[in-house]
Amino acid sequence: MTKPVPETLANLGERGLIARMRGAMPSRADVLIGAGDDCALVAWTEREDLVLKSDPVREGHHFLPDTDSRLVGRKALARVLSDFASMGAEPRWALADLVAPADAPVSRIEGVFEGFAALAREHGVALVGGDTSCGDALELHVFCAGAVPHGRALLRSGAKPGDLLFSTGPLGDSFATGRHLTFEPRLAAGRRLRDAGAHACIDVSDGLASELWHLARESGMHLHVDLSAIPVSPTLAGRPDAIAHALGDGEDFELLFAATAPVEAEPGALPYPPAFGRVVGPAPGGAVTCSATPGGAPRPLPESGFDHFLAT
Amino acid sequence: MTKPVPETLANLGERGLIARMRGAMPSRADVLIGAGDDCALVAWTEREDLVLKSDPVREGHHFLPDTDSRLVGRKALARVLSDFASMGAEPRWALADLVAPADAPVSRIEGVFEGFAALAREHGVALVGGDTSCGDALELHVFCAGAVPHGRALLRSGAKPGDLLFSTGPLGDSFATGRHLTFEPRLAAGRRLRDAGAHACIDVSDGLASELWHLARESGMHLHVDLSAIPVSPTLAGRPDAIAHALGDGEDFELLFAATAPVEAEPGALPYPPAFGRVVGPAPGGAVTCSATPGGAPRPLPESGFDHFLAT
Repeated sequence: MTKPVPETLANLGERGLIARMRGAMPSRADVLIGAGDDCALVAWTEREDLVLKSDPVREGHHFLPDTDSRLVGRKALARVLSDFASMGAEPRWALADLVAPADAPVSRIEGVFEGFAALAREHGVALVGGDTSCGDALELHVFCAGAVPHGRALLRSGAKPGDLLFSTGPLGDSFATGRHLTFEPRLAAGRRLRDAGAHACIDVSDGLASELWHLARESGMHLHVDLSAIPVSPTLAGRPDAIAHALGDGEDFELLFAATAPVEAEPGALPYPPAFGRVVGPAPGGAVTCSATPGGAPRPLPESGFDHFLAT
Repeated sequence: MTKPVPETLANLGERGLIARMRGAMPSRADVLIGAGDDCALVAWTEREDLVLKSDPVREGHHFLPDTDSRLVGRKALARVLSDFASMGAEPRWALADLVAPADAPVSRIEGVFEGFAALAREHGVALVGGDTSCGDALELHVFCAGAVPHGRALLRSGAKPGDLLFSTGPLGDSFATGRHLTFEPRLAAGRRLRDAGAHACIDVSDGLASELWHLARESGMHLHVDLSAIPVSPTLAGRPDAIAHALGDGEDFELLFAATAPVEAEPGALPYPPAFGRVVGPAPGGAVTCSATPGGAPRPLPESGFDHFLAT
């Protein structure tokens, strides 16, 4: 007889865990969107819905021990702001829970707060509190609250048959160039997409393939992608693994969106890169296919997104 | 020549760090209270102010590796709800960032969420999102948003000369009895104090002495405490170190409040334990004194609160 393998986070995975919890989550009548989109959404006033989001950065996962600490603080906030961007929402107030080793130089912690504060000021976000406690590695958990005009948030679930699929910018070189530490959260783009009538949106944090699957599942649609049309980062031009990086690396923090037609970055300006896919039609549970060329044979696109726990 | 000792979190301490950061925090015109009270407070509508708070629990600090994981999840939320209680506010929506070792049994994580969810349901709080990531020890960062009637939040800064000092319940045996894991957040008491016109309030998380100093500093008042009148937990009765536990242990999560007269727990019910101190008068920067007996000679009360980083 073999001993049964105990079920651990490593073999269940973050997604499996969340799927299991989701049904058991306590809710309220005023919750419009709970877990399952980029941010939570709550009915508050006739004019605005309240938007809530938290995200951590951890040493060894999101940055290295020798990463400039100002970039650590900046990235911690920028990740959360990117989620606000994907809903067309406005971040306003943030709290930051810091964990740091007791022997961490104060200058390193000050750097974290400086980087955080500089980006917060740029986007009109107030730092209204938080906590500091002692742990083995540096981590920062950022919580942000903000608002979106009532009923106007861009959701993952809004994709419609016939929509085209776009990214607000090129993908794939975030780790090669260090842009995962310095990216600009696409808040203006998110508001623009919202006002231009885009149907669905998500930020590219885990990787394009993973985000396509999120859109497909939440919208209950079949998406098809032309791999040759994905806007790959110019620094990867000509590399055979460029598409793989764009699909799997993540942390590009561009917005993936579904709309009936191209959207100009500003009224009268150039549109975002051309469409690289389309919404084929309804598919319960979602489906994503791809082809190597515009007219090529479709095959399933694996969801090769980053999962914090999966060992393989 | 001696090498200069690098400034670390351990020798600066959490309070020193926060004091240094506080002036540099980005703010907004709609922030009523930022860092420095139990929760942050933001102007939102004519009827209600938005209340925001985050707090972590970490293995080895707030619970032990063998603590029932349901109590871990319960405590993580209860700590934040206690901060809402101290402002007379209503918690509504929570996010939870979990960090756990990859080899953590899923049953342990499920326990954390069960404990969290049960308390959330009790108080009408929705769990609307969060994150799960991989780390060395179990920790849970809880963020909560809620509301308080506009302009009516109970603050630390409201104590007035002549006010009496009360606790909503006995203090000192939280660790001896394990009540730091099972306490009831005093949400009803907080609302009651708010409606009964209490002037200032804080929850007893770090220890009574520390909370008295917070009230004194934020109110700019001199507080005096009669040590013999502190409502010590019955389980400590007769023990010579009972007062020391009440002053220094913390995690009682009763409310310390300043009011002109005793307040009944409900209209017509018994009042909270008798006053054990009073607000003597203004003192820039705050001051706290104590005497062993009602008429005894006053001496300074040291701020022996728990500080996560101080080595001594």
